[in-house]
Amino acid sequence: MIFSIEKDKITYILSTVEKFVPNKTTIPILSGIKFTAKNNNLILTATDLDMGIETSLSAEIIEEGSAVLPSKVFLEIMRKLPKGNIFFNKKEDKITVEAGEIKLSLPCFEPYDFPEIIPEKSFPLLRISNDIFKKMVKQTIFAAAEESLSRPVLTGELLEVKDGRFNIVALDGFRIAWRWEDADAKDFSIIVPGRTLSEFSKIDFEDEDKEFELHYSDNRVIFKSKAITITSRVLEGKFIDYREIVKVEPKVKVMSSTDELLESIERAYVFAKEGSKNNVVKLDIKKDVITVSSESEAGIFTENVKCKTSGEDLLVAFNAKFLIDALKSIEYPEISMDFGGEVNPLIIKPLNVENHINFLLPIRLRSEG
Amino acid sequence: MIFSIEKDKITYILSTVEKFVPNKTTIPILSGIKFTAKNNNLILTATDLDMGIETSLSAEIIEEGSAVLPSKVFLEIMRKLPKGNIFFNKKEDKITVEAGEIKLSLPCFEPYDFPEIIPEKSFPLLRISNDIFKKMVKQTIFAAAEESLSRPVLTGELLEVKDGRFNIVALDGFRIAWRWEDADAKDFSIIVPGRTLSEFSKIDFEDEDKEFELHYSDNRVIFKSKAITITSRVLEGKFIDYREIVKVEPKVKVMSSTDELLESIERAYVFAKEGSKNNVVKLDIKKDVITVSSESEAGIFTENVKCKTSGEDLLVAFNAKFLIDALKSIEYPEISMDFGGEVNPLIIKPLNVENHINFLLPIRLRSEG
Repeated sequence: MIFSIEKDKITYILSTVEKFVPNKTTIPILSGIKFTAKNNNLILTATDLDMGIETSLSAEIIEEGSAVLPSKVFLEIMRKLPKGNIFFNKKEDKITVEAGEIKLSLPCFEPYDFPEIIPEKSFPLLRISNDIFKKMVKQTIFAAAEESLSRPVLTGELLEVKDGRFNIVALDGFRIAWRWEDADAKDFSIIVPGRTLSEFSKIDFEDEDKEFELHYSDNRVIFKSKAITITSRVLEGKFIDYREIVKVEPKVKVMSSTDELLESIERAYVFAKEGSKNNVVKLDIKKDVITVSSESEAGIFTENVKCKTSGEDLLVAFNAKFLIDALKSIEYPEISMDFGGEVNPLIIKPLNVENHINFLLPIRLRSEG
Repeated sequence: MIFSIEKDKITYILSTVEKFVPNKTTIPILSGIKFTAKNNNLILTATDLDMGIETSLSAEIIEEGSAVLPSKVFLEIMRKLPKGNIFFNKKEDKITVEAGEIKLSLPCFEPYDFPEIIPEKSFPLLRISNDIFKKMVKQTIFAAAEESLSRPVLTGELLEVKDGRFNIVALDGFRIAWRWEDADAKDFSIIVPGRTLSEFSKIDFEDEDKEFELHYSDNRVIFKSKAITITSRVLEGKFIDYREIVKVEPKVKVMSSTDELLESIERAYVFAKEGSKNNVVKLDIKKDVITVSSESEAGIFTENVKCKTSGEDLLVAFNAKFLIDALKSIEYPEISMDFGGEVNPLIIKPLNVENHINFLLPIRLRSEG
């Protein structure tokens, strides 16, 4: 394998590929990135078996071939090379790299044991813009459970088309984040690990990579865009019927500024997270005002936030962190909130926008509350 | 104590003061910041007993007094308050804080047990620009030892006026960094802890604070500028006679670009720091070229760097990290290097500038080298 490629071009793509190289692995070859020089393309592959990436970029291929390069030191030295062309030449178990007055010799693995990560056959589910999908992930993923041995599906997100709508849903037993867009696709339903979606949403796609096609094959999901293909196993199991759960009978309806309420709860959280207070923030809702308060050894906080209310007065408590996550996910300046009562859920939506629902269970206050 | 102050004004100064609050302390009151409202000023004090800070800023004082506020939560909530005036009111062991619709109640300590950190009497040693002094510290402090139980003075820097020159010197037994400026002051010599100088050099002085006066009193050093006073104990002991040590008989003299050599050694360091190679980088100096090389399990690196040489050929090895530190400290585009030989020191200076010397001991190569 002999090829030449521009430094900036390879370091740009390597910064995406390296995220898919496992930090720890018992299989040494997986700590490397597979290089395949073929036709006029250089193909880079990395995987931890659960998920993987394959990218393709044009390069001057002098001799076709492939090799696996241990990634850590390789990535570090690539970034430090001067601008210009870099020549790679594989000789037995070494790769020599030349860039101007610089010569490197790096150990490499043979490529034969590197796992094939993209299924040969798969069928398409949906085509969607990278930017919109990344935003939908960002607006929901915080509500997925970080770990759940008993119910692993909770660590993923539901990707589902139903009745012409593409839904992304995350939930952890205390809250639900649900975002949707219209979609021209047949019904399907899969659960994708949160980690895969999180890595996908960090990818800095090039301008020509505006959208991807979602594919499915044998318990794997594949995100195919022009230069980058991501693959991941799906999570097995049944997702909770979120559509039923989010039907809440409101005791009080509130309209408020997203940022004013968010900032107030962030202030309350400074006190709520201290000591053993479990992040409890109280919302005391009266006619056109919410009094946000929290209390711990660190001190007492209260703030009156103006809003529009309709319905009964209500004193209700939430996990401040969960409220902050939900309010931060809303990209509109105003929200509507339907409070179900002291022990019933809260629904937060952007005001007059129908594509996003946050559902939160309250924390029960003791009688002294 | 009752006073009012603008939010941005107090958070700006608190971000400097908080650096002097110890993270861990067995004396609870030291985990706080002392507030003293007096005349038209608010004075903030923090100390870990080794070093301390006192700052003064104008405020609307309604009732004079003082109190110590636990700093962690206080600083966090101050930053999150909206812009505008904040009112502070001490009532017994609580401080109430009001900002618009926000009310806080914070526990506080009585101020009587808070140590006085600025000696009443001290005598001036030197007056110098904050910016120049901060730069001199930055250009030398990396050479101080991080820890030295046997010789604590090595963890500090020598501040010395001798024969009309102000010298700052750090050394750790393997290298010396020495920077000087002309000074119109009497001779003195003190050793200041590296941590104090490091914190000082991070302070973001306001525009009217252009210079400070260095004072001394009872084993303490005091940096007095207009709004900020820093104090620190000095380190006891004798400093090595660096003037004698840096006299090196050159076997080969080299002139090179600072950045070209630095970048090459940074690349060599990528390999030198892997495995058990102790950061060894080799410099193979021949007529007008230095071949920089390193080698470890991670691979082999070589690069030819053009330069001007005069003298013998030489193969010599250094700790790449130490070379990088020295080269980074030089603020001129070209350097002159006097190599004493395989086992003798290297002197690095900015080319044609006489205010800065870096001294480095080589690493002895085994015979196979």
